[in-house]
Amino acid sequence: MVSEEIYKELSIKNEKKIVLLVIDGVGDLPVDGKTALEDAVTPSLDKLCQNSITGLTYPVSMGITPGSGPAHLSIFGYDPLKYNIGRGVLEALGIDFKLGKKDIAARSNFATIDENGVITDRRASRIPTEKNQEICEFLSSRIKSIEDVEVIIRSGKEHRFVVVFRGDDLSDGVKDTDPQQVGLKPRVSASLDSRGEKTARIVNTFVETASSLLKDYTPANFVLLRGISKYPDIPSMEELFKLTPAAIATYPMYKGLARLVGMEILETGSSITSEFDSLKKNWHAFDFFYIHIKKTDSYGEDGNFEKKVSVIEEVDKNIPQILDLEPDCFVVTGDHSTPCKMKAHSWHPNPFLLNSPFGRKDSAVSFTELECAKGILGKFAAINAMTLMLAHTLKLKKYGA
Amino acid sequence: MVSEEIYKELSIKNEKKIVLLVIDGVGDLPVDGKTALEDAVTPSLDKLCQNSITGLTYPVSMGITPGSGPAHLSIFGYDPLKYNIGRGVLEALGIDFKLGKKDIAARSNFATIDENGVITDRRASRIPTEKNQEICEFLSSRIKSIEDVEVIIRSGKEHRFVVVFRGDDLSDGVKDTDPQQVGLKPRVSASLDSRGEKTARIVNTFVETASSLLKDYTPANFVLLRGISKYPDIPSMEELFKLTPAAIATYPMYKGLARLVGMEILETGSSITSEFDSLKKNWHAFDFFYIHIKKTDSYGEDGNFEKKVSVIEEVDKNIPQILDLEPDCFVVTGDHSTPCKMKAHSWHPNPFLLNSPFGRKDSAVSFTELECAKGILGKFAAINAMTLMLAHTLKLKKYGA
Repeated sequence: MVSEEIYKELSIKNEKKIVLLVIDGVGDLPVDGKTALEDAVTPSLDKLCQNSITGLTYPVSMGITPGSGPAHLSIFGYDPLKYNIGRGVLEALGIDFKLGKKDIAARSNFATIDENGVITDRRASRIPTEKNQEICEFLSSRIKSIEDVEVIIRSGKEHRFVVVFRGDDLSDGVKDTDPQQVGLKPRVSASLDSRGEKTARIVNTFVETASSLLKDYTPANFVLLRGISKYPDIPSMEELFKLTPAAIATYPMYKGLARLVGMEILETGSSITSEFDSLKKNWHAFDFFYIHIKKTDSYGEDGNFEKKVSVIEEVDKNIPQILDLEPDCFVVTGDHSTPCKMKAHSWHPNPFLLNSPFGRKDSAVSFTELECAKGILGKFAAINAMTLMLAHTLKLKKYGA
Repeated sequence: MVSEEIYKELSIKNEKKIVLLVIDGVGDLPVDGKTALEDAVTPSLDKLCQNSITGLTYPVSMGITPGSGPAHLSIFGYDPLKYNIGRGVLEALGIDFKLGKKDIAARSNFATIDENGVITDRRASRIPTEKNQEICEFLSSRIKSIEDVEVIIRSGKEHRFVVVFRGDDLSDGVKDTDPQQVGLKPRVSASLDSRGEKTARIVNTFVETASSLLKDYTPANFVLLRGISKYPDIPSMEELFKLTPAAIATYPMYKGLARLVGMEILETGSSITSEFDSLKKNWHAFDFFYIHIKKTDSYGEDGNFEKKVSVIEEVDKNIPQILDLEPDCFVVTGDHSTPCKMKAHSWHPNPFLLNSPFGRKDSAVSFTELECAKGILGKFAAINAMTLMLAHTLKLKKYGA
């Protein structure tokens, strides 16, 4: 793997434009003999594939099933084993909260404890989201700061919410308060290293104050914090690759991940067509576009094969729109596989297609797992996708003389 | 490559069972146009292959010929470049000596020195094994300990034997006494680091004492020690992968390697059939089974193509027995290649087949080098085999959120 220093040294700015289309969880396992990509009618993707180079990518490593964070970082050109995004940060990204570089975020639950202080339900009977919002408003009105640290509380779904601590000298080197098991008492946070003392103290004060305010809110009479984390110190795509990147995504978490590496988030409606419209509208202003299609993954998670196929077909219908823009490099791939029969993310490698005038055409005739398996790019770590996109747009100088 | 910490974090225990069948040295080069695997009639392996995913594995790295130690460690999921097993330890494993964690083992030769103390034969005219046993018994009766260290002497074949030093504060950071060349004087052992002083002193005392006792045993009038080593500090498969593993092997070295990573060694007769019987008998008690077939390698080393083919055919006849047990993941592979025309281990990658309901079937129709070369797994480092086996039995959690 090429180091970040080498990318900084070799990358150059030019006018050529890259489009990275990520069809979330598109890779599949056969259902009745065919995968979703094999079943879908995709004339545009097939034709594109016949003029492209193909392969299969491993997001993290062979056999490792990635979450959305590592899977995306990897296609963006970042080592997913180096940059570990905490659960608190991801949760904040997921509710579209604009986290600052120094902020500490915690993934938090409303929970139930009994008179002895023992946790009886880590999820407070999954209180309705409306109740959650009401409690978060109440807590927000009563806890605005602790010492010199601002406290920001944002509700999520059912029992989930996010707490953000904003101030100086905060560290993510602190322990969770959530023991992740009922029948135990909540933990007291503690510093994991020399820098975490203040944060642990603030966290513990927050838990005490919130819980005493919630005494009469049973089943939501306690709060549990975990994944207490801050933004990883990650260089931007501009810094590493000299790109001016933009993201078109409909779900907060993917916008958050894109923002994390310095992409500008473009406005879009929620339909696939409106995402492609946004690309067209902003075509002049950026040289790298990440477009995220979410529903393939959602239907994979639901085990809904037919709907997954229909989303792929809808994407296919929009492919000519992208081609009309004449991108210098156009990549279509998944971030990870979400096989319908597993109803979950999986470790299976992702079909990958790269279209550029500088590709050595291979024999793949359609954009499917098995056709891409024959491709000239072979099976490779997804982190190389960025290098390939930069290479095919002549954005990398020669290494050495 | 995923770190051991990540395996510890991601691996989970479940009921699913893995069978890893290692056909030692099975990979070959063509003789009269066909490799042993291509020549052998293997209907069961072929059928299995048609329902499996395939690839070719590199035990250590492209072009590197591995010994049995690194080749096996790699398929067991351990970095063979991180865990270097000393020759002394391997020799002890090879004679089925149960080495303790603190023991120091040396690969030792009886040798001949002349009146000036110069080595004239490093192998003492390859004295008969019976003579070796007699001398080892004699030495054992006269040297039981040095300082507070127990000395254990075990005979091997011809001029070879093993010395084990058992006691506290011993280190493998010491120099060999064998200069590995005739015409030189034996070396004096010395500490390679601060921890080796005691061991070097014990080694030198042993050599002096043994050699003075052997004065009249010409040609075996001296002893040379090399590969002075101890067990690598290696985490067990239980610790890393949460497996309860068992090994079925007929040769001591492979049992020793399996014991090294914490496998339980199952009883078996020496025939292939009895190895498979042992699998059946112990099926309920473990979730990971390593079965080792030795003779393919032995016949490869002999350059006996026909016999190698016949061993492969015998294995093939036993495949249905394994399938009857319905393993959740069944892998067939070699540890390294042993081409008949080379009569030695080689660097050629190993055919690899993984059968599981979660595989994307590929186009390989028979278990041969060239068919596996087309496989969906591509060419990959053998250390990934363990990750793949864990993934296909759902024994790994998602990495990151």
